[in-house]
Amino acid sequence: MQATLALARETGYAKLSIEAVAARAGAGKHTIYRRWPSKGLLFLDSLLSLNEPVLDYPDTGDVLADLRRQIYAAVDLLANPPWGPLYQALVAEVQHDPAVAAGFNERFIRPQTDKTITRLKTAQDQGQVSPDFDLDLAMAILSGPLYFRLLITQEPMTHDYVDRVLQALFAGMSPRH
Amino acid sequence: MQATLALARETGYAKLSIEAVAARAGAGKHTIYRRWPSKGLLFLDSLLSLNEPVLDYPDTGDVLADLRRQIYAAVDLLANPPWGPLYQALVAEVQHDPAVAAGFNERFIRPQTDKTITRLKTAQDQGQVSPDFDLDLAMAILSGPLYFRLLITQEPMTHDYVDRVLQALFAGMSPRH
Repeated sequence: MQATLALARETGYAKLSIEAVAARAGAGKHTIYRRWPSKGLLFLDSLLSLNEPVLDYPDTGDVLADLRRQIYAAVDLLANPPWGPLYQALVAEVQHDPAVAAGFNERFIRPQTDKTITRLKTAQDQGQVSPDFDLDLAMAILSGPLYFRLLITQEPMTHDYVDRVLQALFAGMSPRH
Repeated sequence: MQATLALARETGYAKLSIEAVAARAGAGKHTIYRRWPSKGLLFLDSLLSLNEPVLDYPDTGDVLADLRRQIYAAVDLLANPPWGPLYQALVAEVQHDPAVAAGFNERFIRPQTDKTITRLKTAQDQGQVSPDFDLDLAMAILSGPLYFRLLITQEPMTHDYVDRVLQALFAGMSPRH
């Protein structure tokens, strides 16, 4: 998996191949195919092996500050070079390969969603998040605007953008009287 | 382009090829390559040729009802079969092909963004949307949670989901006092 990540960083996802990974790792390609039936699954496992504790939410008692810090860390890691383009390639693979989609959701999105809900539930109990806010939507609402920028407009993912999104989501679109 | 759409619906995006489109259209493949240098660009043009007026925003004076109606129409068209999987394939292509990414943004996302901002600006002037709401974020905030579901979790895009997202975005995450 280290060979996969090293090669992916050097050549990009499109040029990554199981053959090249086998050569770099000094292994037979059948050995690799036995464990990972597709390039997408090998790449998913390799990315997950980074296992960055940076993606955990802190709990300082200030939910907005904690979300900001966690999302800064996530976008610094996943939305900028070198991992940004590789993460985009992984999401592209998710559109074509149901096995990659299932693995990505079970092993990355679902645990992230659970952490997000847990942190927001605490904030809700402390009166920092509206008691009406639908926690099941938390991941879609908080990360949707980030994925929109990463995958659709492909504009740079700056801390300023994160700040503006959090401000808008907390304030809401309705006028406050 | 009709041949492209017909074939894409029959075979899916992965199996679509310029050769097959040429055969279906009774044209030479070089004729097609001269106009569309890649399958991604041909597919983008073909999808845009649908030119659904359904994607325009109504203005009945009730911004929440109008957004709901427009987003229902958009998800009915773009997030469900037959176009859902093809739209997912197009977004996957956007991750790999900068020419498709540029065309998709200039010719689809940018005009949709402008329409969204125009409708929300009217609502803001009428006091239905907070004067502090950052209109430049409107498209990311409104459509981000929909793209998250379409591209990441790939759960069904229901009207109920749209309703819950709009409710959460209008109310905001902060408690209202």
